[in-house]
Order: sequence, then C-alpha cells, then structure tokens
Amino acid sequence: MSFNTFGKIFRFSTWGESHGVAIGCVVDGCPPNIPISEKEIQADMNRRRPGKSKFTSQRKESDKVEILSGIFQGKTTGTPISMIIYNKDSRSRDYETIKDKFRPGHADYTYFLKYGIRDYRGGGRQSARETASRVAAGAIARIVLNKIIGKKFKITGAVIQLGVLGCNKKNWNEKEIRKNPFFCPDKKSIKLWEKYLLAVRKAGSSCGAIIELRATGVPVGLGAPIYSKLDADIASALMSINAVKGVNIGAGMNSAFLSGEDNSDEIRNISRKVKFKSNNAGGILGGISSGQDIIASFSVKPTSSILSSRQTINKKGKNTKISVRGRHDPCVGIRAVPIGEAMLSCVLLDHYLMHKAQCG
Amino acid sequence: MSFNTFGKIFRFSTWGESHGVAIGCVVDGCPPNIPISEKEIQADMNRRRPGKSKFTSQRKESDKVEILSGIFQGKTTGTPISMIIYNKDSRSRDYETIKDKFRPGHADYTYFLKYGIRDYRGGGRQSARETASRVAAGAIARIVLNKIIGKKFKITGAVIQLGVLGCNKKNWNEKEIRKNPFFCPDKKSIKLWEKYLLAVRKAGSSCGAIIELRATGVPVGLGAPIYSKLDADIASALMSINAVKGVNIGAGMNSAFLSGEDNSDEIRNISRKVKFKSNNAGGILGGISSGQDIIASFSVKPTSSILSSRQTINKKGKNTKISVRGRHDPCVGIRAVPIGEAMLSCVLLDHYLMHKAQCG
Amino acid sequence: MSFNTFGKIFRFSTWGESHGVAIGCVVDGCPPNIPISEKEIQADMNRRRPGKSKFTSQRKESDKVEILSGIFQGKTTGTPISMIIYNKDSRSRDYETIKDKFRPGHADYTYFLKYGIRDYRGGGRQSARETASRVAAGAIARIVLNKIIGKKFKITGAVIQLGVLGCNKKNWNEKEIRKNPFFCPDKKSIKLWEKYLLAVRKAGSSCGAIIELRATGVPVGLGAPIYSKLDADIASALMSINAVKGVNIGAGMNSAFLSGEDNSDEIRNISRKVKFKSNNAGGILGGISSGQDIIASFSVKPTSSILSSRQTINKKGKNTKISVRGRHDPCVGIRAVPIGEAMLSCVLLDHYLMHKAQCG
Amino acid sequence: MSFNTFGKIFRFSTWGESHGVAIGCVVDGCPPNIPISEKEIQADMNRRRPGKSKFTSQRKESDKVEILSGIFQGKTTGTPISMIIYNKDSRSRDYETIKDKFRPGHADYTYFLKYGIRDYRGGGRQSARETASRVAAGAIARIVLNKIIGKKFKITGAVIQLGVLGCNKKNWNEKEIRKNPFFCPDKKSIKLWEKYLLAVRKAGSSCGAIIELRATGVPVGLGAPIYSKLDADIASALMSINAVKGVNIGAGMNSAFLSGEDNSDEIRNISRKVKFKSNNAGGILGGISSGQDIIASFSVKPTSSILSSRQTINKKGKNTKISVRGRHDPCVGIRAVPIGEAMLSCVLLDHYLMHKAQCG
Repeated sequence: MSFNTFGKIFRFSTWGESHGVAIGCVVDGCPPNIPISEKEIQADMNRRRPGKSKFTSQRKESDKVEILSGIFQGKTTGTPISMIIYNKDSRSRDYETIKDKFRPGHADYTYFLKYGIRDYRGGGRQSARETASRVAAGAIARIVLNKIIGKKFKITGAVIQLGVLGCNKKNWNEKEIRKNPFFCPDKKSIKLWEKYLLAVRKAGSSCGAIIELRATGVPVGLGAPIYSKLDADIASALMSINAVKGVNIGAGMNSAFLSGEDNSDEIRNISRKVKFKSNNAGGILGGISSGQDIIASFSVKPTSSILSSRQTINKKGKNTKISVRGRHDPCVGIRAVPIGEAMLSCVLLDHYLMHKAQCG
Repeated sequence: MSFNTFGKIFRFSTWGESHGVAIGCVVDGCPPNIPISEKEIQADMNRRRPGKSKFTSQRKESDKVEILSGIFQGKTTGTPISMIIYNKDSRSRDYETIKDKFRPGHADYTYFLKYGIRDYRGGGRQSARETASRVAAGAIARIVLNKIIGKKFKITGAVIQLGVLGCNKKNWNEKEIRKNPFFCPDKKSIKLWEKYLLAVRKAGSSCGAIIELRATGVPVGLGAPIYSKLDADIASALMSINAVKGVNIGAGMNSAFLSGEDNSDEIRNISRKVKFKSNNAGGILGGISSGQDIIASFSVKPTSSILSSRQTINKKGKNTKISVRGRHDPCVGIRAVPIGEAMLSCVLLDHYLMHKAQCG
Repeated sequence: MSFNTFGKIFRFSTWGESHGVAIGCVVDGCPPNIPISEKEIQADMNRRRPGKSKFTSQRKESDKVEILSGIFQGKTTGTPISMIIYNKDSRSRDYETIKDKFRPGHADYTYFLKYGIRDYRGGGRQSARETASRVAAGAIARIVLNKIIGKKFKITGAVIQLGVLGCNKKNWNEKEIRKNPFFCPDKKSIKLWEKYLLAVRKAGSSCGAIIELRATGVPVGLGAPIYSKLDADIASALMSINAVKGVNIGAGMNSAFLSGEDNSDEIRNISRKVKFKSNNAGGILGGISSGQDIIASFSVKPTSSILSSRQTINKKGKNTKISVRGRHDPCVGIRAVPIGEAMLSCVLLDHYLMHKAQCG
Repeated sequence: MSFNTFGKIFRFSTWGESHGVAIGCVVDGCPPNIPISEKEIQADMNRRRPGKSKFTSQRKESDKVEILSGIFQGKTTGTPISMIIYNKDSRSRDYETIKDKFRPGHADYTYFLKYGIRDYRGGGRQSARETASRVAAGAIARIVLNKIIGKKFKITGAVIQLGVLGCNKKNWNEKEIRKNPFFCPDKKSIKLWEKYLLAVRKAGSSCGAIIELRATGVPVGLGAPIYSKLDADIASALMSINAVKGVNIGAGMNSAFLSGEDNSDEIRNISRKVKFKSNNAGGILGGISSGQDIIASFSVKPTSSILSSRQTINKKGKNTKISVRGRHDPCVGIRAVPIGEAMLSCVLLDHYLMHKAQCG
C-alpha cells in the first residue's frame, strides 16, 4: 500500500499541503554515484512554477528546492534523497469566505466525507501544489536515465489541444515548445491560443487541455506483465495528476475506430535496425516497450475555480452559492506539461531498474 | 513490486499460459465468513468464455473454475482462495507455422527481446486467456461487495462503440445488455452491429470497441490521495487488460473541450440527499468517490490476428510476411466487458477495505 | 501488503489448507532462461516430507510437486511458476473429537477470534503443511542462485540442539547431516539423540530444537538499509515458520555478553583477499552481506500436540480438557531444517535481484 | 519494495545522515482526527536523545522535532505527517583521520562495497542517528493506539541484561525504569550496573545489552498468516535496529529446551474472561495476538567504536590499524529501549489497521 508513494524500486513519497510551512518529497531506491545538483533540479522546477506569465496563476512561488539528504560530494549515495520546498506566498485568508462551502469540481466534498476534515486553506493536500514535489522527483529520474542510457534518452511534453483549439502536430517543434507560454509545439497556433486564453481569463472562465508526451531512446524490454505493464503504470501515473480525466497510449481511444490492418504496426528490418512502419501502439506491446517512441497523452479538465456563481452545499448540507476568486490558472493543463514529463520519467526509470533486476 | 499481482489489501495473483495445463489465480485478503460458491463464480466466467456466439473465438473452453482452498463449509475463511481453470481446447499446432515470426500488434517481439524466449503457443502468458482468471477474482470481489454494501451496489458494463458504429446511450437498457451477443445497451443498434461484424469477420479483418462501465451504490469516500487515487487505480486496472489503449473517467478526454462552467458538477441538497446536477467527474473528485455513479470507459484496439498478409520480421531479424489463421475474435473488445467489470469490482473492494483500515 | 506472499522482487505466494484438496504456491519475478525441472524441486521436497523415519509424523504424503506454468521447454520464462501438491493422506476424522476445542499452543483460539471460523481439519491454514510450498519455492531460488552465482553458493542447515541435548559444532560434517534422520551435523551426538527422542515420543511428549543455517559463497553487498536489511528480512522469514520463537544472526543473543573487543570482527587483507578474523556478525554488517558466511539460527518450540491431558476452553468459552492424538512429530524442529534453508534461499535471491536493480 | 520505509498501512519513511543538515521521517496512512502535538512527540524523543547522562554519548543534540505537514488545527488530517530534526552537534572533523579506513563491526566496508561510496561523516546513513526518526514515528503510533484502544494499551521496554550483568525480572517496576539512566526495571541492580558501566567506559571498551518489551492491552486477533505474522513483523522491526543480533518472542530461544507440557500455555475461563496459565508464547499464537501481553526481547551487540587498537583494512585494501575516538555510547543498548518501544508501537498500529481492513 502506498497512499502517497509512487513507484516500485525507484520510489518517491510526497508530503505537504498547499498552505502549510513547506512541501517536499523523499526519493528512495535511486542508484548511487550519479552526479546531481540542486541547480539541475531547479531548472525543471522553474518550468512548472506559477506566476511566470499572465496565462498562469499569479501566486508568487520561487519553488526553490533544497536537498536535505542522500547526496554526498555532489553524488547520490543510494540512500533517500529528501527535498524540501518552502511555501512563500500562501494567502489562506483568500479562502476564509468559502471555508464552509464545497467548491464544485474540487475535492472539498469528498475529502470532508472521507476524513471528516475541511482543510480549506487552498485545498490542503488536494491542491495541485503537491505536483511541485513530483517535478523534483522527476528531475532526478531524468538525470539518472540520461546518465545510464545516455543523451539519446529524452522526454518532451507539449499541449496539443487548448480548450476548443487544436494545433497541427506535423509542425511539432521542440525549440518552439520551450519558447511560448503554452508549451505549444506548433508556432502557427500560438497567436490564436493567446487571444483565446486571454478571453477565457477575462470572462473569469477556464478551459481544459490535452498534453502529449513523447519519450525517445527508451530501450526495448521495459515493462512487465501483467499488472505492472508499462502502459498500466503510465496510466496510473498520469491519472494521479490533479484534474486529469483521460489517458491514451499511442492511438488511444481512437484505436477503437481502426481496422486491424490499419492499427497493427508492421515491423521491418531496415539496414539491420528493427523499424516499425507506424506507431499506433505508442511504443508499447503487451505492456513492454518496443524501442519505438513512447507516446502518451492525457486530458486535463478546465480549472474548477471560476468567477461565475455556482450552486453547491456547505458543511452543514445546506444549499448555497459559491464564486471562487483568487489567483487561479485559467487553464491548469498548461502547467501539467512538466508534471507529465516528470511522472513519465519516474515510470521509465522504475521499469528500467525492474527490468535490470529480473532480466538484466 | 507485483508483476502478476493486482491490488493492495484485496489482492489477486494470476498465473498460467494460453496453452499450458491450466491457468488460475490466488485471491488474498478476502474478508472471512462471506458465502461463496463455485456456481456463482462460474456464472461470471460464462459471460467471458469464448465460443458462445459466432462473433467470438470458436475455441471451445468450458472455463470451468475449481476452488482449491480458502473456502470452508461454503464460506470464505480469510485465507487465500486458490482457483484453477484447466485448458481444454488449446491447439498449439495452429501456431507451429508462425513460431519463428513476430505477429505485428502482438507482444511476440517485446517478450522475446525482454525474456529471450518465444513461447509461440497462442502467445503464452501474453494471451488474453489470462483474463479468465481475473473474471474469477472479480466475481469474488463482486459477491463480497454485495454482501457488505448490499444489493444497491451494482456494476454494469456495455459496448458503446463497435468499430465505426456507435449506439445511443440514452437507450441504455441493462436487460438488453444481457440478451445480445455484443453486450450492447441499445436495442436499436443491434441489427446494424450484426451485419457490420459479420462483414468484418468474413473479410478476415477485425475492429475495435469502446466499453463503458457504470458502478452504482458506491459509498462516498473510497479512494486515497495521491498515488492510490481511485481513478488512478481504475486506469491502471483497465489499461492492464490486453489490447486496451485508452481510459476515460467521466467526461474523460472530452473534458479538455469543456469550459469550467460546463464541466464542474454543481451540488444540491434535495430532500436531505446530496445530489450532483451532472456527472462529468465520473463519480470521482480528487481521487475519492463522491457517491455518484462511477463511470469509466476504455478502448480496445482491433484484434491483431488477421487474415491479411502483413510485413514483419522473424527471430533471426529477417524480413518476412505473416498471415494469422486460427480461431480469433473479430472484435476482442466484446469479451472485454466482463473483464472490465471484474477489474472495477476488484478496485472498488480493495479501496473499500483500504478506507475501512484508515478511516473506518 | 502481502498476507500470504513473501519477497520483494522474487516473490512467492502460498495457498492451501492441511486437509484441503491441495496446497501450492506461485513464484513470481523469477529470472528467465534458468533450467528447472520438477525432479530437482522434488529432491528438496523429499527432505521435508513426513513419514520418512520413526522420528517424524507418520502421515504418508508423497508431497509430489507438479509445475503448472512458467516453464517452457525446460526453462523458466520469467512468468509466474505455479506449483501444486495434492494432499493425499489427510484424515480429518482424527480431528472430529476436538473440533470445538482450542488446542493449547496452537493457533486455534487466535484464528477463531480473528476470523470467526474454526477450521478444525488439522489446523487448516495454520498447519505446518503450508511449509511444503515454501520448500518448493526455495528449491527454485537455490537453483537460480547456483546458476547465477555458481556452485560456490551453498546453503546448509542442521539441528544443533535437540531439546536438552546439544552437539559439538566443531564436528560439523555436511555429509553426516544428510545421513541421519535428525539433520545432526555431529556424528557423535546421534546415538544419544536417538534414545532421547524415542523416549520423548514414547512418553507422548515433545521437545524443541535449534537449527543453524550457513550460507557460503554469498556476494558482498546484498542487503539494503534500513527496513529491508538482510538480517531483518532473514529474521522475518525464519520467524514466519510455524513454531519458531527466536532468531539469531551470528553471535545473536550472546552478543549481549561480549565486550566490544571480543565481538567486532577484525578485517585483514590476506593474499589480496579480504578476510575477517572472526564471524560474530554472521556475515552481515549494517544489514548488508560482507562476503563472510551468513550464519543464522532459530529455535523451534516443542510440538504442541501432545498426549497429556491439558486444560483449555471450547468454542463456547467453557473450561474443558484436551489430549491430542494423531500423527504428530515428537520434534517439529527436525523438519524445519529444509524449510529454513528454503526461506534463506528465497531471501538471498530476492536481495541479489534487489541489489542488481539499484547498484548492479 | 521499501528500502527506507516500514509498515504496510501505517507506514513511515526515514531519511537523513548522521552529519547532514537534518534527518526526518514521513508518516503515511495515519488515521484522521487524532489530536497530536509536537510536545507529546518530543517527550519520546527526549528519552532517546544522547547526552543525558554520563552513560551515553556526549554528542549534544536537542533532537527537537518539527512537524511540517499532516496536522491541521491540532489534529491529524489523514495525509502524510512530515517531521524534521535538524542536526546540531555533528563534528565531521572527528572522522577525518579514519575516513579511508573501515571500522570493524561497523558497516563502513559493506556500504563501500555496495554503493561505491564512503560517507565517513559519522557513518552517514548507517548511523544509529536514523533511529531518532523512528522514535518520532513511534510516538505517533502510540498516541493513535491510546486514542483508539484506550489507556489500557501500554508498551514498556527495559534493559534486562547489561553486558555480563543481569537483573531480577521479578522486581520489574515501571516507575523505576523511568528513574534510572539504564532503563533498568530492578532497583536492586542499579548500583552494580553503574560501577560496571563506568569501568567499561573508563577502559575505552563497550558492552552489549538485552532489552525486553512488554505490550499490554493488545486486542486479540492482530496479525496475519503467513508472511505478515505479528511475530515475523516484530522480528523484522527489531532486527532492523542498529546493532541488534537476536530477537525472541516469549520464551524465545529457550523454547527449544522445554517439553511440550512445559511450553504450551493452557487456557482457562476465569470469571468469564479468557486467561492463559503461562505466557511462553509471548502473546502470539500462529502469528496472531492472543490478548495476553506481547513479550519480545532483543540483544544489542557492544558498541563497535572502542579505544583499543584494532586490525582492519583501508579503502585501497591495505592492512592498517584503527582506534576510534569520539563521543560514543559505552553501551548502545541502553538508548535502544525507546527505539524498541517505537518499533513495536508501529507494528501494532499497523496490524490493528490491517485487521480492521480485512476482519473489522
């Protein structure tokens, strides 16, 4: 059992609430002798942190990560790596007015019914602030994978659908993703996305998003039948991210509409290298990586905190209305990109170590 | 770690290959003193077994389940329930001609690369035959939940999309699901589905499907932050089923296209009962059940074993072609209905016990 | 959680009751491509099975193990190895007269209070019959270790104390252990032990034993801080064996009486090999193997089923007396030798794979 | 897998090195709505911390525990409780002179061989400093158990053997344990123990100890067959404490010397209460608590850091000598008392929750 722990060999446990003193995570099972610095981890933290553009929450968090253990003379020791991120800009008073009401679309109601507690301060443990810890763990996973597998290993995520607006995946450009505030891979879509999201924000509304993750350089053979299939673990990892409601591997839900001829990826030996003629499988067959790119996508529902007045009940069960002010992302999906990358990094390192254990 | 085990407290481990002596599973953590009979389990087995209509594989398996332990005087003892299902109609010779080739869309290639072994007999462990064991475990979970929660608890699955053909979910009729060979909930769709699938089968082709699962009577409070969220565990459970490529909870991937106003389910107190005005969340908020129906759907890719000649390579890495004969389902998605129900039953019982442990 | 499963990567789950149809186990996480035959496993089974001499239970069980899955063409496939052992000579009628009474020293009372069930047939799941499954799993672990590490790896167990009678460990002779019915390592002790145990049996009484296990050829570095220390896992493994009440590593309880000078094992480089001048640590420092022999011992309490009339209560809580007839071992400790070896084999393989995962 | 995590439902993960910034732990699975304060936890911390008498290490650590998460308005929320303890008085320079040598009896050699790293600063992760985190976790477990079960639940540990000196357990007096610096339960032994330990310390030597733990008020039915037996988990918990080499339950190793008649505890109904006439089982039958006191004891080897010159090798494998100065406990066993109590508290709460999950 592991309520707040993810992984099997490379494991991380997160802790902390949105408006507590700090949040953090403990990474266990990391291979020893891997050079890791706070600076490298911070680079990933910065990609997720709020307040970087007008399209995300204006909460000012430096999200500065500090390593408390597990690194000696710049290298991992094989013992737990504890990291802490202090909360700097939590304004619990913003939540005073709604502290007895359940915000629709949030977990206020279910947490209260489950635990008998209403930690109203920004959602407490249910807040997406927890994901900062995941990004820290994911940064470590990525560094380890790059050290072990080499530079050919790479994970890239991008927003491919912003509310009702898609983009042209054929224009996928990694450099572009790093430039624009939407993690959009298609330069041509950005202007329209800007206008759209500004309108959404101005209306006090919100929109959803679809994120696609691509991992290249993944060795063949990662994954394990039956209940630790690589795709099952990816699905679990991504669905555990706040507001995620759907996960696809390769062709995903669309595979239902294809014929067997169109769907199954033919295999070729081209210049002594195994190549597949398509990638509907998303790089995973029978739960095991095939050497193709791992492709996974997931949907993030629209931010539930919106300005419009909404019907709800309060702690006493009485009908009431709520309108949520505060510093919310008009599209939480945007900041889900580095989180998705982090989770996929952790799953892949975990399976890399599992594979080494049994078959290495 | 648990390659072949599913669950945290209510756990089952499956074993066995498609063409071995037998397959089976061991269920651990089952509450004691629950009346369970082979007959009840068999009823669920019969819903999954092949050869029941012309729309599924003609492999003749009685799928008769035998209980070897854990039941004393008709009741569970709290100790492991071991069940065995003998393989009766395996024809390994059907696979002799392709034993050195990797079937596209199957896990032949990845298993071979991972384990260094090519168990060509019907796919060995990668075969969907393994799912018979899950249905047995799921039957136990369902019986236990009905005993503990009462008859109001119910899980129903149906095929809502057969290849390119959808159905009208407004016509959802549970009795109808049990009558037709497609687990289709909409009587009006059946004739067209019949024609379509016969044509697919005749062409030696195959098609995919989308299955929707609905669980009613689920108590509020099941689920656990962060990495054992109810939806994360459902996603993992469903994605572990052979050929599944996508999982949605509630509005699922479509949630990306909705506005915050349209998506978040408003809450009302109606005659002293908490009611939600919609169910885009699929009955899960923050990873915890809200008391609404749990709604999950998943896609099953088209059967990869098709008559058409396909390009592939053999064990030596040489280019070759393959055409798969045998007794294959034209749409494996159909038989995935009872499997999905079984997995969801197991997840819900597991979370019920987990909730009792921490908050009960 | 794992009520009936042991291990982290190399895991086995056992099932079955003393007087049920069969007992068995499922081994998961076994490395692929290891040659394993039923015959090799049977050899270990035979060392544990009852009825081999007048000093053990006269229950006639062939303990024939059958492999149901996980082996293809004589080699492990990396998928679960399911094994079954049918019960042949269970006489449940022997237990009819005591079916409402709790046998002192047995788990009848605690099982009944925990589960609300009295499986009186030979103790049901609490019976030491379950240990046959462990020996089967342990045989696989030993075979794998011998294949991976080589023939230098060896585990030997012996009874070093039979009730009040010790033996001279300086006379430790492996060949002797295999010859006498007591697994006694000291030829000079056997005659006395024979007389003693015959007297014990004749009196309808019973005695305890101490077993010592020695593993040679164990690589340095197995084990893991903090809560999966090699010695912590060995302690758990041995304490899980029926009737075991104490576990020592190296000097064990006696270490309390030593001075720091006498206890800590000095280290030397002798001809470019690291040697320790003593082995009070039992080959484990900080939970990690040092390359010395792993030495562990454990005590087995005297058989609780004895002829003498004993005071107890029945299911209704009324005071009564009990005298247990049947076919019981006068010293269950004897047959614990192969069980202890099996458990130690499993722990060592498990840690070997864990070490490979993180540091290999 | 869980290198640095203990427990199944109530779980804690520890992190940190002896001479790092801080150490700490994360407690997961704690029931919600339990009042817990730093002050209560600190009381247990103070019992373990060094520098309190001349008989323990003179390292001055306040061992002040800070709660970072999981408590809201003075009560547990059901989410992870993160605690941090800053290291104040680490003098890494004390270890400079021995940084290339392996201290006999310590884990320097095995850690170096396993991880390729020599964290010489006070032993790094292998240091018993880690046990401070366990005491914090154990304090929470104890508070929860007292809240759930009531005040009748109590765990008391005592040193019953100090090196070569025993005590009279018939004089067991709980108040006395809290008064003297040895946690000795027998007032009459204290003067002699003082003289003895002063002599040991003056000689720069060290001695071992045996600690006995008694838990009263434990409900019947805690524990689980087969591999999560209560005694197996206690054995694992205690053996995971630094320097522990042996664990006994009830009669422990001595059970080997008893006859069946002397060993098995007869059962009586006395005034409608179930009573046992003796407690050789240590309150555990078949791995399940019987309602009697749980009695467990464990040995702690003598401190390995002693003044005498000892033979060893250095990192390059060359023979050398070592003499360890510093601020070491002459008998580490003394401070093991609160650690043992903490571990037993955690095991019992964990099994309480497990029992509730399956059978509650």
